[in-house]
Amino acid sequence: MILAQRSARHLPLCDPMTTTSTSFAATFEHQLSLLEERLIQAVPLPDSTVGDQIRDLVRAGGKRLRPSLTLCAASIYGANLDDTLTVASGIELLHTATLIHDDLVDNARERRGTSTMNAVFPLGLVVLSGDLLFAEAARLVAEVENMNVVRSFARALSEICHGELMQAQSKFSFASFENYYQRIYGKTASLFRTAAETGAMLGTDDPKQIEAMGEYGRLLGMAFQIIDDTLDFTSDAQKLGKPIGHDLRDGVISLPVMLYHQKQRNPNGAFNRVIVGDANESQLLSVIEAIKASGAVEESMLIAADFARQAREKLSIVPADEAREMLISFTHFAVDRDY
Amino acid sequence: MILAQRSARHLPLCDPMTTTSTSFAATFEHQLSLLEERLIQAVPLPDSTVGDQIRDLVRAGGKRLRPSLTLCAASIYGANLDDTLTVASGIELLHTATLIHDDLVDNARERRGTSTMNAVFPLGLVVLSGDLLFAEAARLVAEVENMNVVRSFARALSEICHGELMQAQSKFSFASFENYYQRIYGKTASLFRTAAETGAMLGTDDPKQIEAMGEYGRLLGMAFQIIDDTLDFTSDAQKLGKPIGHDLRDGVISLPVMLYHQKQRNPNGAFNRVIVGDANESQLLSVIEAIKASGAVEESMLIAADFARQAREKLSIVPADEAREMLISFTHFAVDRDY
Repeated sequence: MILAQRSARHLPLCDPMTTTSTSFAATFEHQLSLLEERLIQAVPLPDSTVGDQIRDLVRAGGKRLRPSLTLCAASIYGANLDDTLTVASGIELLHTATLIHDDLVDNARERRGTSTMNAVFPLGLVVLSGDLLFAEAARLVAEVENMNVVRSFARALSEICHGELMQAQSKFSFASFENYYQRIYGKTASLFRTAAETGAMLGTDDPKQIEAMGEYGRLLGMAFQIIDDTLDFTSDAQKLGKPIGHDLRDGVISLPVMLYHQKQRNPNGAFNRVIVGDANESQLLSVIEAIKASGAVEESMLIAADFARQAREKLSIVPADEAREMLISFTHFAVDRDY
Repeated sequence: MILAQRSARHLPLCDPMTTTSTSFAATFEHQLSLLEERLIQAVPLPDSTVGDQIRDLVRAGGKRLRPSLTLCAASIYGANLDDTLTVASGIELLHTATLIHDDLVDNARERRGTSTMNAVFPLGLVVLSGDLLFAEAARLVAEVENMNVVRSFARALSEICHGELMQAQSKFSFASFENYYQRIYGKTASLFRTAAETGAMLGTDDPKQIEAMGEYGRLLGMAFQIIDDTLDFTSDAQKLGKPIGHDLRDGVISLPVMLYHQKQRNPNGAFNRVIVGDANESQLLSVIEAIKASGAVEESMLIAADFARQAREKLSIVPADEAREMLISFTHFAVDRDY
């Protein structure tokens, strides 16, 4: 599971904590609607049930956070809108492709309020559908005449796969904090980085600006994923679209679990059974309560807030602009959300 | 199943039907040995059992026909060797990635005399390993500063997935001859095309030369896949690495089956049961014998030979060169092989 993007609600266009004015917000909203059109057009297999299922998954949405980073970054540097929409669509399709394969790997049955591909189609079609979306994403990015964009995209593709493999191999076992941060960089922050830096690359050649944008994206992605990991303990099933403790039940040992484990001098038997995937439901619920009571969730949120603060700092050298304010608002949204 | 590449035997370096001299053959053999090194270096995940299994699969080889096309085409146009090896490695890794996912989709247990990934690892690791190889292939191709190469590669990636999806969706049913040719173009000839044309792109900007090379690759790939489809009837299990009638048993309706079906005024009951996947082993064997006795296999071989002839014709505008002779020898090899 990469990200909890089950809600059809989009990002808030204006955050009360920032001064985002309405003029860029209107432009941005218009660009998002153009993006929606591009996305649906880019899904292959017209007139096929497999294609229809992929289109449903794309339409059901998610927050469109990654392409929003591309749109805002591109706006700051005055990039060509057509190229920007092409790259932003490629990034969102790559994200969708990873969700299709993740759901298969995790045997998930529901995503974004609709059935997963693997709940509907046989294994072969699901594997190939994910591959096809990877391919279409690569094709979109290759349409734009920019080798830096192609390289950033290829790097993200590789890092995502590494992150997912790390997660698959580290289930039901404790790894180091370093391993955890590497894993969430790969599975989430790498594509956030590419989303932001490719937006910049389309409008500027200045390596300092491109690096600042990439770092903003990476740090935002780290904050976003850590909050995602806390929501596994604090959200409710309806908002999140998956039951509380879903990741823990599935053997994903995330930051709150690691911090709780560090605090315990003598971890009790239920905790040890949960970690190895050998607990019953009441033991799992008692461990979730113990983790929440320990302060490990709040501690994780503070760590996420610090990543978000670092992300904002990276924007200090970026031209002051309404689109930059929007990027700042995303750093607040990433940590102040319950879905 | 994309291609029967189970033999560790490489291509013959000199074909008796051509005049390929030994000097380019020696250069080519040296380049192939450099390619082997690049390929192993390019496989990610050092010190992991998943990585080791992928390296075994890459080492077990196959004919290296696709990267050979890139090497020869690049040699004709004097392309940079380092870039050529990078792109050729990317093409072979992409091919390997498709084999990993194909074996999973087909539930194949053995490939190139070694266990398939899915015979050894759980589903999740196999899906992600294939994805990772796709990603590394894309990374390799993005290392070279050539947008045409990137676009050709992205197009092949998309066409391969389309071809595989077509095959998965058309199992156990008759489609048109047009559908068959589209399917084998996607699953095989598209990457042959990219292998040949990217070699040219690295050394020339002349669109006519690039197109001729691409067409040569495409037509060779068509011939190669049709012969592959006949080997399902005529080869023996040891040479081919899979039992006779494997594809037919798996519901893949290939050219010999379609030609046989066209000849029959009143197809018998056994044939109809084989087509829908409802035959026993003795019925399957009797249908294989009937197809062989009908002349449909020879007819398919003639069609393949005609594709090979067309491939040779495309080379008429290509500079006469020992590497061109090697490309011509591949058109003979593609149709005169029993593995």
